[in-house]
Amino acid sequence: MPDKDGLARGLEVMREVNGPMAQAMLERVGEISPEFGELLVKHVFGEVYTRPGLDYKQRQFATVAALAAMGNAQPQLMMHMNGALNSGCSRAEIVELMIHISVYAGFPAAMNGLFAAKELFAQRDAKGIKN
Amino acid sequence: MPDKDGLARGLEVMREVNGPMAQAMLERVGEISPEFGELLVKHVFGEVYTRPGLDYKQRQFATVAALAAMGNAQPQLMMHMNGALNSGCSRAEIVELMIHISVYAGFPAAMNGLFAAKELFAQRDAKGIKN
Amino acid sequence: MPDKDGLARGLEVMREVNGPMAQAMLERVGEISPEFGELLVKHVFGEVYTRPGLDYKQRQFATVAALAAMGNAQPQLMMHMNGALNSGCSRAEIVELMIHISVYAGFPAAMNGLFAAKELFAQRDAKGIKN
Amino acid sequence: MPDKDGLARGLEVMREVNGPMAQAMLERVGEISPEFGELLVKHVFGEVYTRPGLDYKQRQFATVAALAAMGNAQPQLMMHMNGALNSGCSRAEIVELMIHISVYAGFPAAMNGLFAAKELFAQRDAKGIKN
Amino acid sequence: MPDKDGLARGLEVMREVNGPMAQAMLERVGEISPEFGELLVKHVFGEVYTRPGLDYKQRQFATVAALAAMGNAQPQLMMHMNGALNSGCSRAEIVELMIHISVYAGFPAAMNGLFAAKELFAQRDAKGIKN
Amino acid sequence: MPDKDGLARGLEVMREVNGPMAQAMLERVGEISPEFGELLVKHVFGEVYTRPGLDYKQRQFATVAALAAMGNAQPQLMMHMNGALNSGCSRAEIVELMIHISVYAGFPAAMNGLFAAKELFAQRDAKGIKN
Repeated sequence: MPDKDGLARGLEVMREVNGPMAQAMLERVGEISPEFGELLVKHVFGEVYTRPGLDYKQRQFATVAALAAMGNAQPQLMMHMNGALNSGCSRAEIVELMIHISVYAGFPAAMNGLFAAKELFAQRDAKGIKN
Repeated sequence: MPDKDGLARGLEVMREVNGPMAQAMLERVGEISPEFGELLVKHVFGEVYTRPGLDYKQRQFATVAALAAMGNAQPQLMMHMNGALNSGCSRAEIVELMIHISVYAGFPAAMNGLFAAKELFAQRDAKGIKN
Repeated sequence: MPDKDGLARGLEVMREVNGPMAQAMLERVGEISPEFGELLVKHVFGEVYTRPGLDYKQRQFATVAALAAMGNAQPQLMMHMNGALNSGCSRAEIVELMIHISVYAGFPAAMNGLFAAKELFAQRDAKGIKN
Repeated sequence: MPDKDGLARGLEVMREVNGPMAQAMLERVGEISPEFGELLVKHVFGEVYTRPGLDYKQRQFATVAALAAMGNAQPQLMMHMNGALNSGCSRAEIVELMIHISVYAGFPAAMNGLFAAKELFAQRDAKGIKN
Repeated sequence: MPDKDGLARGLEVMREVNGPMAQAMLERVGEISPEFGELLVKHVFGEVYTRPGLDYKQRQFATVAALAAMGNAQPQLMMHMNGALNSGCSRAEIVELMIHISVYAGFPAAMNGLFAAKELFAQRDAKGIKN
Repeated sequence: MPDKDGLARGLEVMREVNGPMAQAMLERVGEISPEFGELLVKHVFGEVYTRPGLDYKQRQFATVAALAAMGNAQPQLMMHMNGALNSGCSRAEIVELMIHISVYAGFPAAMNGLFAAKELFAQRDAKGIKN
């Protein structure tokens, strides 16, 4: 019997933090492996994001730093930039974070992060989202 | 004529943020290339860290997230964990950040980050530093 | 005089393992460097894949694990997932392998691997291939 | 109330697969963050390793392939090579896997994997372990 | 007051080395962060590329080797291959460099580098550029 | 019947380019897998290094750029820096190359490359080697 409570809590957190973009990615992953989607929601959002010690804004900020530095997951980078904005980061902080990352992961990684930010900001503008 | 003001400002910021550990690494790098040391201090600390938009704590926090995720620079990871603690992060936040990173860069990267933290905390304990 | 026998043997193995998808990639690479294509076929398929100790299924399985973890070669990941299916892996094993990889390389790498698998399975469905 | 059953099941699997080497690494991690250790045991060994679809040998084999390719976690690579041998892989398969990985992640990554294997085999020899 | 001289010198070097392709990328980045564009031009082209010790051809050659090996910045790889050709590298040297890189970063990274080269050569052909 | 001529030619090239340091690494790898050592010598030095289009100095220079950027093979980085010096690179070019790499792979990778260079130069000094 799966841990339905953990799953329900995870879904709630995921929706609060990452919004419809996460929902869409989860559905896409669910078409190939619903069990992976369930594991992800339960573990990542139900177990890790709900831990005390760092708030959602700090978690999304750290995730954006890590994914931009690793440089091999552009769609997830954009999704977590979106989550960071939803959690209280400003657009200026996201841009400044990419400038900062150029020091540690090189200019190309930073530039690709900025291109992801640019695309995301345009999407949010189109939806009338202010920040 | 080198930009002495930029260099002086960078050194000041570097010492404020990373303390004697950065000074020692700079001296070690200066034995092989003083020009690289100068470029690093001017660009990284004089130009990037002094930019508005993110404070030192956020910058060190992001650096720790990025280096732990990339996983190929343990000495620098430890130095920036130290800088993060000097800039107002708590030990618990560093530990929690490594737990968070396991989601995005895998458990081995997180574990190696925790081992770096453990060694750093012991060094700070030995110096009587409380946080 | 090139080692025509090594080349012929390599081509045979490559076609057996990876099928028309490898043939197409080889032709694409041959338009820019036929010598690289020849080196690849001879060394990778003629020398390495023909070694005893691991069978084709194990080799493709390991390749899929490695490429998904590295996360910077999606087209090749898809090609080797195809090779794994041709060598006796089931679709369920490929999906489970991606879930497993999330532990060691993070959830974004696993998710991108699953998206590659999804696209590949659709291509195989369209060709009437059952597994 | 923590999920004690998941934890107990995870510990059992971890000990069966990775033996005293995992136990030692868990204790070392527990000195800095017992909660991370618990999360790791429950999620990795309690949730992922116990899933059907791949047996322990296949999981360890894939882990060794992934960690050798990523090349930034030598201690964990050695531990999972040990787990692979405990789960039914032969030493020759581990060596052959590193040779195979040279194709996809380059010769230096393969060579470092072989050095990890060499050290591990010597440790097992010293304990009188035959394979 | 920004260092206009450093900026002017950097722009000149950037245009000499990378031509209209760099100009276009700079404009694209300027739409999201003009300050990042300025920092990049001043630091990378004004400070680093103008240093003695390596000429532009060697710098572009090294950049192509590094980006192909890292494998996570295809647009920048293509731009720097273009810069290498503009600085005196031949097309044959770029192709041979990718073959060489297969040894150290694996065949998929080399193959993706060759595909970038192929696309670039076609663009240069279309503009009537001979080398 | 192994291709003894390819092997002999590869050994000759390897000794010419990388000297006793490569010989030592080959012997160390030979203790765990002589077949891998043979494959490496034949393929890397017998097949790739002997190709026209790039000379040994360019090949070693590119290898140093790639390994420093990837950042996960310090022993091999040092060995290839040694090979670069043996092939006509100056120490100043190696140092400058690391400074250049900081732009594309970040300052920590460059710094670790400089530490490898420092250790190598001291070893060469101790042997009375001038460059």
